[in-house]
Amino acid sequence: MTQTIRIIGIDPGLRRTGWGVIDTLGNSLKFVASGTVTSDGDMDLASRLCQLHDGLAEVVHAYRPDEAAVEQTFVNKDAVATLKLGQARGVVMLVPARAGLPVSEYAPNAVKKAVIGVGHGEKQQIHMMLKILMPKVEFTGNDAADALAIAICHAHHRGGERMRRVLARA
Amino acid sequence: MTQTIRIIGIDPGLRRTGWGVIDTLGNSLKFVASGTVTSDGDMDLASRLCQLHDGLAEVVHAYRPDEAAVEQTFVNKDAVATLKLGQARGVVMLVPARAGLPVSEYAPNAVKKAVIGVGHGEKQQIHMMLKILMPKVEFTGNDAADALAIAICHAHHRGGERMRRVLARA
Repeated sequence: MTQTIRIIGIDPGLRRTGWGVIDTLGNSLKFVASGTVTSDGDMDLASRLCQLHDGLAEVVHAYRPDEAAVEQTFVNKDAVATLKLGQARGVVMLVPARAGLPVSEYAPNAVKKAVIGVGHGEKQQIHMMLKILMPKVEFTGNDAADALAIAICHAHHRGGERMRRVLARA
Repeated sequence: MTQTIRIIGIDPGLRRTGWGVIDTLGNSLKFVASGTVTSDGDMDLASRLCQLHDGLAEVVHAYRPDEAAVEQTFVNKDAVATLKLGQARGVVMLVPARAGLPVSEYAPNAVKKAVIGVGHGEKQQIHMMLKILMPKVEFTGNDAADALAIAICHAHHRGGERMRRVLARA
């Protein structure tokens, strides 16, 4: 009954949206691809949202994931930044949803906990754990790494007890 | 050289997004259609963003506007509300942009000033002025009325001095 599930994790941002695709089969995790979709800060907002949409739609089309996971936005005191991130996030969630994928949301602390075992941690710890969990992993930059961590978090939550044990042992 | 320009005004919201389509030719304004696209509050966020996208894409497809105008979001102290609105707004701006329309943004005060002559005013004043400016206007609810006001604001700004005189006389 076990089958490979391909997951895309997405770390939304107006300037840079990270994405990471992994395969999960039973208790194994396999790196597929990762990258960053960027928008041009000199263009108007609507055009930038189009750039994010088109870039991410291309990734979904190329890798055909089964499920998507997106980081829950950290709402901070900077309302203008929250609004910008919200606009990017709306588009970023729309792309997999329109492709028929279920889209799960995870809080940043849940993502860190799934990957490094605690709810707080440095970027370097996440990078190291990605390499331990998926030896063939490749990523450039924090956004792609975070997106892979989000994908692993989803594998963790959807996989139940067995996957949690695997992650706990790593 | 003068030609009819069809404008869609959009008032974004996650639960209700108002839209209004008008034609502007020289110094005339003509009502075309208005309505509200809604999303189901019981569904998950990604599905709701899909509902907004699909509903608005249908309107753009049906009325084929040339240009779009969207109200600038009022950033308030409620960060969660700002984020929600941002997510809806990202999707709402994406739809006309992907259809190749230029998308302009206007502050709420600019919209009120274009329609009722001052930067502050009651909903009822906006409704009344819509009826004066476009006798055949039809709308149900504040979201559709606001969307029509946004479309008029854009006609005002794109039309230059002549349109401003028409609006000043109304």
